[in-house]
Amino acid sequence: MSTKKTSLKDIAQKAGVSTALVSYVLNGKEKESRVGQEIARKIKQIATELHYQPNHLAKSLRSGKTHTIGLIIADISNPFFANIARVVEDEAKRNGYTVIIGSSDENADKSRDLLNVLINRQVDGFIIVSSENSEEQILDLKEKNIPFVLLDRYFPDIQTDFVSTDHYKASYEATTHLIENGYQRVGMIAYDSQMFHMQERIRGYQDALEAGSQHVQKSWLKVVRIDTIETGVRTAIDELLKADYPVDALLFATYSLAINGLKYINTLQLNVPSELAIVSFGQAEVFELYHCPITYLKQPIVLLGQTAIELLVKKLANNVTEPAQILMKAELVERASSKTKKEGST
Amino acid sequence: MSTKKTSLKDIAQKAGVSTALVSYVLNGKEKESRVGQEIARKIKQIATELHYQPNHLAKSLRSGKTHTIGLIIADISNPFFANIARVVEDEAKRNGYTVIIGSSDENADKSRDLLNVLINRQVDGFIIVSSENSEEQILDLKEKNIPFVLLDRYFPDIQTDFVSTDHYKASYEATTHLIENGYQRVGMIAYDSQMFHMQERIRGYQDALEAGSQHVQKSWLKVVRIDTIETGVRTAIDELLKADYPVDALLFATYSLAINGLKYINTLQLNVPSELAIVSFGQAEVFELYHCPITYLKQPIVLLGQTAIELLVKKLANNVTEPAQILMKAELVERASSKTKKEGST
Repeated sequence: MSTKKTSLKDIAQKAGVSTALVSYVLNGKEKESRVGQEIARKIKQIATELHYQPNHLAKSLRSGKTHTIGLIIADISNPFFANIARVVEDEAKRNGYTVIIGSSDENADKSRDLLNVLINRQVDGFIIVSSENSEEQILDLKEKNIPFVLLDRYFPDIQTDFVSTDHYKASYEATTHLIENGYQRVGMIAYDSQMFHMQERIRGYQDALEAGSQHVQKSWLKVVRIDTIETGVRTAIDELLKADYPVDALLFATYSLAINGLKYINTLQLNVPSELAIVSFGQAEVFELYHCPITYLKQPIVLLGQTAIELLVKKLANNVTEPAQILMKAELVERASSKTKKEGST
Repeated sequence: MSTKKTSLKDIAQKAGVSTALVSYVLNGKEKESRVGQEIARKIKQIATELHYQPNHLAKSLRSGKTHTIGLIIADISNPFFANIARVVEDEAKRNGYTVIIGSSDENADKSRDLLNVLINRQVDGFIIVSSENSEEQILDLKEKNIPFVLLDRYFPDIQTDFVSTDHYKASYEATTHLIENGYQRVGMIAYDSQMFHMQERIRGYQDALEAGSQHVQKSWLKVVRIDTIETGVRTAIDELLKADYPVDALLFATYSLAINGLKYINTLQLNVPSELAIVSFGQAEVFELYHCPITYLKQPIVLLGQTAIELLVKKLANNVTEPAQILMKAELVERASSKTKKEGST
């Protein structure tokens, strides 16, 4: 704080007693120090008058526990992360922990800043939705023996605890669903990212296409940079629709890609699903309320959040060292946007 | 952290020097203490080997500045707050501050917990979206001289800095817009809350109705409890449509009320706007992508967030004491859901 804080010494001077005595009283140790009731009451009253604020920090440093968990999410404005933050908070509270949140905006530098800020603020441990190029930070946490659990995204080459959706399976299932419903030319719009979860989503799509579709075109996969998402998605859709083998269905690898895609599809006045079927990762009210409700891969947000907290709390209590690596299944929620293709439609 | 930390003493013992010397070197004060380069290098190397982590906290406590801002939002799963958090973070970063976030879930107890946790973690100041019944917390912050700025919601009876939308004007304008477009029986669904911003939204609606509509029914205003929002909104809509003077237009006081309302309106297969025109507070992708795009009151999120940070940073720098109270105008973004009523439609 910018104003000077009341110290134990201030109280001691005003009460005419020793600082040690004030410390005993304000830490509830009157009996041990055999302070008279009268003087104890006086000290407490002065502390109140001077707005004395006990320094829990110093206390926490001694006990080594703050009962606070740091949650780093990749983007607070993405409803998937915002909702998972809500679950993590509720679950942490049930376990007696308070959550403080930082959003890295998918930026490794910002993620490092946040980790440092929260480490310095003595959180007991972390739940982290990693951003790209943050492997070193994770290794650093491991080396420093700071307890953490990765959520939704993990690094296959680093031995850590994680709780994640099985992104490969989800993508495979979504693509197969479209093929089985009569769409032979399934495109995908994904992020231009080396992050493992994104690569897994792409691999699941490619394998399902290879297994179930004919005349597969590699160009049906488009990748878009996150910092030029709006124009990137437009260009990708244009190219996919004007190709020699134009796509008749589209899998969006994330919620944000889908939102940008749906806006553009609206301006093109394309009929969903007869002209273009759609399935998307992520979940949001908008998928239910779109004029043609959108089929989506529902990630188990509540279970992901609860399990992450459960693992972390266990680690904090027992210093468990065996890594727990948990993959969960996304549920394909079928809506009108991917219903069986009608005979004769293009 | 739960594992024992390396202390300056540990390093001193291993290096065979005094703790004070280690402290000088690791705080970059070699020159002042005239340490030899060789010994300085050795100390730094041992610190690295032992994973020594400087205690920035202790440093911050001395300087009284942590360059960290605490942001308390009312509900992280509401896109309005999530987006405003993103703006606050960006703007804080530009000013050299890191933001740590807590979500109170519209709960005063949780809000108090978060404030305490963050005060103890020595944030320099707060930006707060208050929850109901948290007046005392605000008074407490004032009394403790902890710098803060209220965002989006404020308490008219407490002298504080705030940056907020002019909720009364926004509501008045939305209601007048519906009346001018031919809707004579405008209903409103709001929260059952004594918070000032909600009362202002209700008052704006009532005044506009009084000024522009005939046969105004008090029963056109429905209030819904936040903890039973889903059933509450359904019941409210049922009652508004089955009344002696059924409404032909509806103003939703928040995004969440609108989402629940739109879902129910879909199941009723009501035509928007011919059977029911709609305007809503809040902003979200879903309003643009709804089959009949929804007219909404766009709050100046970027300006609100930027101004809040600007005020707080100023307070932190100069100890400004004159309260700044800023009301901003929401923009009515007209979409199809409130377009001029056709002759002859009910």
